[in-house]
Amino acid sequence: MWVNKKIEDIMHRTHTCGELRITDLGKTVTLAGWVQKSRDLGGMTFIDVRDRYGITQLTFNSEDDETLRSHARELGREYVIKVTGTVIERSSKNAKIPTGDIEIKVSNLEILNESKLPPFTIEDDTDGGEDIRMKYRYLDIRRNPVKNSLLFRHKVTQEVRNYLSGLDFCEIETPYLIKSTPEGARDFVVPSRMNPGQFYALPQSPQTFKQLLMVGGMDKYFQIVKCFRDEDLRADRQPEFTQIDCEMSFVEQEDILNVFEGMTRHLLKTIHGIDVEQFPRMTFEEAMRTYGNDKPDIRFGMKFGELNAVAQHKEFAIFNNAELVVGIAVPGAASYTRKQIDELTEWVKRPQVGASGMVYVKCEADGSFKSSVDKFYDQEDLAKWAEATGASAGDLILILSGPANKTRAQLSALRMELGNRLGLRKPDEFAPLWVIDFPLLEWDEDTERFHAMHHPFTSPKIEDMPLLDTDPGKVRANAYDLVLNGNEIGGGSIRIHDKDMQALMFKHLGFTPEQAQEQFGFLMNAFQYGAPPHGGLAFGLDRLTAILGGQETIRDFIAFPKNNSGRDVMIDAPATVAKEQLDELSISLIAPKN
Amino acid sequence: MWVNKKIEDIMHRTHTCGELRITDLGKTVTLAGWVQKSRDLGGMTFIDVRDRYGITQLTFNSEDDETLRSHARELGREYVIKVTGTVIERSSKNAKIPTGDIEIKVSNLEILNESKLPPFTIEDDTDGGEDIRMKYRYLDIRRNPVKNSLLFRHKVTQEVRNYLSGLDFCEIETPYLIKSTPEGARDFVVPSRMNPGQFYALPQSPQTFKQLLMVGGMDKYFQIVKCFRDEDLRADRQPEFTQIDCEMSFVEQEDILNVFEGMTRHLLKTIHGIDVEQFPRMTFEEAMRTYGNDKPDIRFGMKFGELNAVAQHKEFAIFNNAELVVGIAVPGAASYTRKQIDELTEWVKRPQVGASGMVYVKCEADGSFKSSVDKFYDQEDLAKWAEATGASAGDLILILSGPANKTRAQLSALRMELGNRLGLRKPDEFAPLWVIDFPLLEWDEDTERFHAMHHPFTSPKIEDMPLLDTDPGKVRANAYDLVLNGNEIGGGSIRIHDKDMQALMFKHLGFTPEQAQEQFGFLMNAFQYGAPPHGGLAFGLDRLTAILGGQETIRDFIAFPKNNSGRDVMIDAPATVAKEQLDELSISLIAPKN
Repeated sequence: MWVNKKIEDIMHRTHTCGELRITDLGKTVTLAGWVQKSRDLGGMTFIDVRDRYGITQLTFNSEDDETLRSHARELGREYVIKVTGTVIERSSKNAKIPTGDIEIKVSNLEILNESKLPPFTIEDDTDGGEDIRMKYRYLDIRRNPVKNSLLFRHKVTQEVRNYLSGLDFCEIETPYLIKSTPEGARDFVVPSRMNPGQFYALPQSPQTFKQLLMVGGMDKYFQIVKCFRDEDLRADRQPEFTQIDCEMSFVEQEDILNVFEGMTRHLLKTIHGIDVEQFPRMTFEEAMRTYGNDKPDIRFGMKFGELNAVAQHKEFAIFNNAELVVGIAVPGAASYTRKQIDELTEWVKRPQVGASGMVYVKCEADGSFKSSVDKFYDQEDLAKWAEATGASAGDLILILSGPANKTRAQLSALRMELGNRLGLRKPDEFAPLWVIDFPLLEWDEDTERFHAMHHPFTSPKIEDMPLLDTDPGKVRANAYDLVLNGNEIGGGSIRIHDKDMQALMFKHLGFTPEQAQEQFGFLMNAFQYGAPPHGGLAFGLDRLTAILGGQETIRDFIAFPKNNSGRDVMIDAPATVAKEQLDELSISLIAPKN
Repeated sequence: MWVNKKIEDIMHRTHTCGELRITDLGKTVTLAGWVQKSRDLGGMTFIDVRDRYGITQLTFNSEDDETLRSHARELGREYVIKVTGTVIERSSKNAKIPTGDIEIKVSNLEILNESKLPPFTIEDDTDGGEDIRMKYRYLDIRRNPVKNSLLFRHKVTQEVRNYLSGLDFCEIETPYLIKSTPEGARDFVVPSRMNPGQFYALPQSPQTFKQLLMVGGMDKYFQIVKCFRDEDLRADRQPEFTQIDCEMSFVEQEDILNVFEGMTRHLLKTIHGIDVEQFPRMTFEEAMRTYGNDKPDIRFGMKFGELNAVAQHKEFAIFNNAELVVGIAVPGAASYTRKQIDELTEWVKRPQVGASGMVYVKCEADGSFKSSVDKFYDQEDLAKWAEATGASAGDLILILSGPANKTRAQLSALRMELGNRLGLRKPDEFAPLWVIDFPLLEWDEDTERFHAMHHPFTSPKIEDMPLLDTDPGKVRANAYDLVLNGNEIGGGSIRIHDKDMQALMFKHLGFTPEQAQEQFGFLMNAFQYGAPPHGGLAFGLDRLTAILGGQETIRDFIAFPKNNSGRDVMIDAPATVAKEQLDELSISLIAPKN
């Protein structure tokens, strides 16, 4: 047996590249990192060396050591080097970087590894497109925007864990190899070699396991956990994604909202130093009526004004025949030209939005109104519209009409577009909102039956139970979403904890008792042995982190994301596997279905 | 919009069942939990109510409220109840529980949920066997031994994260849907619906991704992450298991050992309040020679004494023909009876151990020796054996002989067995040890070629490189294991960061350049763009937690473990899936291979 050498004897570096300051003048230091850039000036060569922590300038002087300087001139971008030298004061200081007051007069240079010329520049504004950056993600990660996003994500998860652990939540790992449900068309399945012909499934969420942990008396559970969904990927979705999954026992909705409002407030405080007031709350119904959207961005106004009462009494057939006439007041937009308004009209008529037309009213500075329907409505009518939409002088009222739900969705899209165009969606402003009282069920046109809006374990509001038989779509659930800046960042519910209630719910969802037993028997059995009242929620960590980071897309907050076809282009996965391996698993390939 | 109700207005409980003390006398409180047990005494009923935090005694008195008491008498075990009452002093205090000084005089009782009689008792010493406890794991979790193990695991992971985050390690999630390697016979594969005929694989470890993060300049990475291995399960293995996975750049072996020795010391200090000295280190070769084992339990002695030099000069053919004669001194065992020694002889002759016989020497109190080979050896010979094994008066020397490797393994098994029998393996004593200088390669009898002992990315010791061509088995690697109480709890290496060295390594492992490129091309490509020197290690969290918790088996430290066939008997997974689902995935079932 032998003892430690001193760390100092062997470490590659004494300091990081972000660490040295003017107070370190005169020290002999060793740094290691990547060559960011190099330039010659007279008899000198200057090299910026970079690591995760920052950038430090190195100097090589022909007068001091011609050989050393000539070696330095041969270094290419992204070479990995180790240098030893003395900290000296810079003649021309760089206030933009923390190490900008000093530089290292190098006395020894070692090349730890060479580098080919990278396929794109390792700079904040790179010349590399999305595809090439994904293929060389390990180089992309060297860039500040990606590197800082990953460090930021670490900080968010750390603070989540600090907060929840401080409240006695226990992080518990639930299994990844679980069971596919017949409804689980979006399950990834995993053949089992030891159990031929049988498959595990990867969890879409740990929902049933966290409920079983509540039955098991764990009281307060959380987990930061990967979940999986094999579905066609929309622009900003991933087949594997991360949830902050939480559950509590002996609580009602109010407790959950308070705990996780507290968590969100803790994040805003510790990450951004922002104190947020108590979060506002809005029912699903109010959100739809006021913003046409169950995840409204309340950083800005332009609330919906319903105009049926003040617009359906004249000869304008389009409004008279519409289920809903609804408008928003765009602040300061009365000055828009005809061309600008035409462009907006074209925008709402795009297939992605789908409106058939748009009516406008300009609220002039002198208190008069100028509209595209002046033929049908007088100034007195339009004044009422202005009142209903909250428009003031200088604003532009934009009005859509048609079937209520569709029209609301269209106006919501227009509102968000205008919010973006007018710079009202500020990335450094945070406006959280609870949306509560979601419907329990939603009608599915394809299958012509009701589906659980949240999931089948969500409890209905007791007072709405009588409606289950008469008007199921009207039954409200003890379900809630946390919305931040127009994004749903979390959602959950108070669960059913009574086996008879759960059986009733499965019945209303169209399950036979046998189907319910086959799929969720273990949960319903568990409910027979003393299940406590419980509820919880889950946050989408990828999205939450991106929004807290002031970004719209999640990719830079994921170290190795997949593309829209679910492929990892860096490692080239998925890929074929050897027939022997499939034989071992008792499966074979067949021709694709389509 | 409306505002919060006060939490206090709606919470199910004011206190937990582990919280109330004598200082709370007179308070009106509401508790909720499970009925642990119930007993009648005269006109009183006493009920123990339990939650995650403890147990509190409730009292119901006929004199106060006959109806209430009769309701209380109807409560069954594991009923979920909510009670309100007054904290009073207990007449007969229970010093064994923290709430033992008080009880609740109940004024209101509500049944939140009923319970069938559980299939086993919810007590520390349950009457339930392993199988039934696994089927009803959610009830098993209510028992203290399991519940406390899960809470303990949470504390360990918290402290791991605290320590590593404090050292600027960044936790980064690597993907779960990766690529199978042709060598990956133990990979779980996942068919991709969007990429018919292609498969993802679940990672056996994030090895290549963490190396790519080092190439990406992340400098210090860790992750507590699930890994997967589809192999026949030995007694205490799981198909999904958790690693504390770590990697650092610009380091040498010494840095890694220091950082993770620090982490282990931090755990022992924060979890158990134990200060541990600097960890001893031992080469692989020394560990094998001294303990016959690369993960020796050094909580106790009985080091191997090699006796060839002092035992191969007489007429005893068995020793003379043996490659190795080796013994251990069992402390205080000279008093063993003939019967006891015979039993030990039978024990080493069991097929699981495989020795052909055993020689013993009793070191008597008077300094004389009595052995089973007195016919061949005199007192002077035996005195030398005692010296070589470190035996003192009162000890029993046990000696095995035969081929060196096999004999060492047999004597190691005997040593561990005696350590257990003699109570020398104390669960509350912690003896960490670094085993270093592992061989780079090991010979595989089946495939008749060398395999990487650790993995193909492990760097060889530069000074041993010449041996790669002449005597590959002798090449040592920069590889190390952390051993705790006879278990390998972590292992790692300094990696290769040079593409030519990596190519050379693949060649020595029998890969063609094409095979190496196909399987690990993305890593070898990455090495062309400035890979820093790096290394790391991974801890097995399940095992680490169990050992820190003083347990031999890992199951109670996993919320929902699988059995030896890889099955989750609670949810009955894996299971068959519908043909339609397989069609969607472009796969079909075939008859099992065997």
